[in-house]
Amino acid sequence: MNIINTRIQQLREKMKALKLDAYIVPSTDPHQSEYVCDYWKVRTYFSGFSGSAGTLVVTANEAALWTDGRYFLQVEQECAGTDVHLFKQVVPHAPEHIPWICNELAENAVIGLDYRQFSKSQIDYLLGFSTPKNIVLNHQPHLVNEIWTDRPALPSEKVKVHSLEFSGESTASKLNKVKAEIENQQADYYLLSSLDDIAWLFNIRSTDIDFTPLVTAYGVVGKEKSYLFSDTNRYSSELIEVFNTLNIEVLDYDLIADKLPELSKGKKIVTDAASLNYASFDAIEGEIIFQQSLVQQLKTIKNEVEIENTKKCMLKDGLAMTKFFMWLEDELKERAISEYEIGKKLTSFRKEQPLYKDDSFASIVGYQGNGAIIHYTAPEKGSAMVENKGLLLIDSGAQYENGTTDITRTVWLGGEVSEEIKTAYTSVLKGHIELDQMQFPKGTVGMQLDAFARMHLWKQGLNFPHGTGHGIGSYGMVHEPTQGFTSNMTTSRGAEAHKPNQFTTIEPGCYKKDTYGIRIENVVVSKVNEINDFGEFYGFEALTVFPIDTQLIDVTLLEKSQIDWLNNYHEKVYNTLSTKLKPSEKDWLKEKCKAL
Amino acid sequence: MNIINTRIQQLREKMKALKLDAYIVPSTDPHQSEYVCDYWKVRTYFSGFSGSAGTLVVTANEAALWTDGRYFLQVEQECAGTDVHLFKQVVPHAPEHIPWICNELAENAVIGLDYRQFSKSQIDYLLGFSTPKNIVLNHQPHLVNEIWTDRPALPSEKVKVHSLEFSGESTASKLNKVKAEIENQQADYYLLSSLDDIAWLFNIRSTDIDFTPLVTAYGVVGKEKSYLFSDTNRYSSELIEVFNTLNIEVLDYDLIADKLPELSKGKKIVTDAASLNYASFDAIEGEIIFQQSLVQQLKTIKNEVEIENTKKCMLKDGLAMTKFFMWLEDELKERAISEYEIGKKLTSFRKEQPLYKDDSFASIVGYQGNGAIIHYTAPEKGSAMVENKGLLLIDSGAQYENGTTDITRTVWLGGEVSEEIKTAYTSVLKGHIELDQMQFPKGTVGMQLDAFARMHLWKQGLNFPHGTGHGIGSYGMVHEPTQGFTSNMTTSRGAEAHKPNQFTTIEPGCYKKDTYGIRIENVVVSKVNEINDFGEFYGFEALTVFPIDTQLIDVTLLEKSQIDWLNNYHEKVYNTLSTKLKPSEKDWLKEKCKAL
Repeated sequence: MNIINTRIQQLREKMKALKLDAYIVPSTDPHQSEYVCDYWKVRTYFSGFSGSAGTLVVTANEAALWTDGRYFLQVEQECAGTDVHLFKQVVPHAPEHIPWICNELAENAVIGLDYRQFSKSQIDYLLGFSTPKNIVLNHQPHLVNEIWTDRPALPSEKVKVHSLEFSGESTASKLNKVKAEIENQQADYYLLSSLDDIAWLFNIRSTDIDFTPLVTAYGVVGKEKSYLFSDTNRYSSELIEVFNTLNIEVLDYDLIADKLPELSKGKKIVTDAASLNYASFDAIEGEIIFQQSLVQQLKTIKNEVEIENTKKCMLKDGLAMTKFFMWLEDELKERAISEYEIGKKLTSFRKEQPLYKDDSFASIVGYQGNGAIIHYTAPEKGSAMVENKGLLLIDSGAQYENGTTDITRTVWLGGEVSEEIKTAYTSVLKGHIELDQMQFPKGTVGMQLDAFARMHLWKQGLNFPHGTGHGIGSYGMVHEPTQGFTSNMTTSRGAEAHKPNQFTTIEPGCYKKDTYGIRIENVVVSKVNEINDFGEFYGFEALTVFPIDTQLIDVTLLEKSQIDWLNNYHEKVYNTLSTKLKPSEKDWLKEKCKAL
Repeated sequence: MNIINTRIQQLREKMKALKLDAYIVPSTDPHQSEYVCDYWKVRTYFSGFSGSAGTLVVTANEAALWTDGRYFLQVEQECAGTDVHLFKQVVPHAPEHIPWICNELAENAVIGLDYRQFSKSQIDYLLGFSTPKNIVLNHQPHLVNEIWTDRPALPSEKVKVHSLEFSGESTASKLNKVKAEIENQQADYYLLSSLDDIAWLFNIRSTDIDFTPLVTAYGVVGKEKSYLFSDTNRYSSELIEVFNTLNIEVLDYDLIADKLPELSKGKKIVTDAASLNYASFDAIEGEIIFQQSLVQQLKTIKNEVEIENTKKCMLKDGLAMTKFFMWLEDELKERAISEYEIGKKLTSFRKEQPLYKDDSFASIVGYQGNGAIIHYTAPEKGSAMVENKGLLLIDSGAQYENGTTDITRTVWLGGEVSEEIKTAYTSVLKGHIELDQMQFPKGTVGMQLDAFARMHLWKQGLNFPHGTGHGIGSYGMVHEPTQGFTSNMTTSRGAEAHKPNQFTTIEPGCYKKDTYGIRIENVVVSKVNEINDFGEFYGFEALTVFPIDTQLIDVTLLEKSQIDWLNNYHEKVYNTLSTKLKPSEKDWLKEKCKAL
């Protein structure tokens, strides 16, 4: 029997024994993380599907996997030969399986699930559908372990301090801001579940999750004493000592379950319903004040030290990209290279840079038509062979101890460029420039700004099916809340107003199935441009420093202001990178940065 | 004693007798109309304030008037010497008085109000605040009449058929669409409360409300039989006969109160909670299915006949504007003219055009700094004297039997133009052009498009504090739901996607207090531009035909595509209007339409 089917079979047997009519396996961990450590890859274990988003629902007759358009092809491949049945989500991340389950199940049915993997908000949503049919939820924290006997351990790597030199603000100072909010809410504690909130507040980093330097933990801030629930073996005695001086006690991760009822009894706790898991919610015995994460709001505004450090790490990233693209051009004269090898080689160039820790996500190296697959991953075996012709899209980034990068360039490797591609590329570039150089009043939200990145594509009858950009951390999450650019007003990336000193990506694109994929992405920092009688006006400044391929531009489509932008950008790129380059590299870069 | 204070005193005496602790007087009628007939000007009667938006709340100690920034000055003037106390609303139309009332009143207090003047949604909102304090609502349909003994009668003008020649769709055809929806909802009746929905569906017009050709009525559509509740004396026997053939019975307006319980008992009724008044809601004995007005959705898509007729009426409006502006230029050489006289004269030129019925709103004629008052009305006595220098803003429009117009032009009357004004004017014009010539995919909403009208102002550190445009009817409401352009996502103008064949205004502006007001407004129709692999793309076409003043333009700020747009527009204006003009008028227009 197929291994996945065996596992589903084992799950059904357990369900039967426990009188569960359905079991829900989500993709997340107890912290609502976007990416999770191996221990929490439960949905992958039971379905075979390894994508970042998707939910498996197992009933007596169905093994229903819900995911969105990015992953349909991947599910087809990874779940081939299994009983897993793909349900195509219309809206990514929407809980479209919930109405389905409650419709499938009979009255008084029982749904099993691990409360730790569901946020308070998600369970509330589920209850809205289940309650009218008297369908009951049943918390099962041990069921998975009983089946998955060789489940990987939780991360054990040492926890490192994110030093003041890079963070720009001490834990003491950050804690004081949270304590002020506790006072403000007339509360006693602030509970943090989100790993990136915890990493920021306590200035700690580790390697728990691929590409994301976070530490598995819960945090509780009190007016006097604070707690970090995390594997104590991972903390050096020096770090424990530092925390002690700040009145922070480190307790074992699992102790949260016992300590929460004790701490909260008769007290008021402020927390965020979107990241609080339902097991923690259940354990709180006091009053809860739900509030959008304050730490998220603080973290998204970068301080001067973070901005200066990110500029430094962008320089390093630009140097690595320069060396990599020089290598690629040279090598392609000799031989064809697989997309997979190109991705590995790019990582190797980044690794040479000081303070490099990891890539910030799995590089997307998409040649010709593969560039049109938005979340493409070149397979280790059998990926397309790149030659010195056609279009190559590379979306990549890294985690440096002094910042996080994310850059996409689409380059022409040789041969004749079609008018179609030139028009699409130039329109993407115009959209990128339009948004980069936009000035906008305080209060302008992501959905409004998103339109500027699309307008030149729209005028050509083109568009792209993804958001235009996301917040990005400082040696933190490559997709960091809250702001961004998207045409979806129901997400924070669409609805949040941009504020000064935030890091955001600008990444419009254009994709034609099996033909081409184009995307041009920089990270920008927002800033105050002017304050006058009409209000405060903000703008952006590009942080990413690497040339944008000019071979693909149809210059007749550019306005003078757009040509000026590109020439100024390339002048800045050259001036920033060239001092750190060897003569031959300088020459190469000079050519790439030549004014239009 | 001041007359207003006397009325408030009389109201307080009645309230005391009826044991009411507060009485709420809103600005609307039983149909949630934006403008109301004299009979329903109850808030004006009790407060003295005549603006279109505002709510008076009378308690034993307070006469609190809530209105927004457009009207602060007007309230100061109109309510001077009275006990009326202005409460400044932060958000226009927001029910900010509701929390205030429920905070002021003690537990178990009683609020009096006429349920007919409140929508179901508004009462639900009020109950949300009143219920926790056990504050009770008390319906008072007769109280106002007992005080306001010389209250004007309801409108009595004959009802006219809006003929097929202008409407482009028969009542029978429209009724069938509503009946299909009744079937679709497995319901029995469709109840209409909104006067413009009723005027559209039954193809009727009259003069009940200033500037708006609507008929006071309720409509009920049944699968077999339909009803129009409206003053039967206003309907000719021929019209009654026509309605009879369509199985529509006309019953007296007040009969709705008796007939609704009878018709609805044991039945399902579809209606719109936003326009259904609470008295009607209370009278329904069957099941109610709430739904955003279907008729509103149908009405906003114009048919070919309506589009062709609107083009014809835009031509007439352009001719009237041409004759008017020629007169104004000539006359200003001789004498200064008051803003008020200019407004009257403009109306007189429009009246000369065939099928003219009324102005579509009170013309805004704002000279120099008065142009900065967005809802300015020049007073009959003492309005500013316009001379042949400086800036004049005129926002005006008309109701013709074949369409509705709304146009704003800002013109330079002579003297030196400052750089500041040229920059602001050119930026407004660029925003207007940007939105007019935008192409956008299906699904794009008003909030996204709004940004294009602002971007060039933003880049200059400028902005304007109002929406960029609104839907407009076809011999209907000058502000017609649902679509529009605004940066507020909580309104339908921000949240609704634009669809082909809708009429919308584009009217960006720029205002500096006491200095200048600039606005450039056209009506546009939306259309399908192209359908390709990337989806459906829509665009706009200007319907308004009248030159845009080029004296105020700083040509160095315009891109070539913007100059092309303006030259093409002026060519179209000249070609459209000139065939109907006398030689001297043609010459005048030719000069105004000269290419840049």
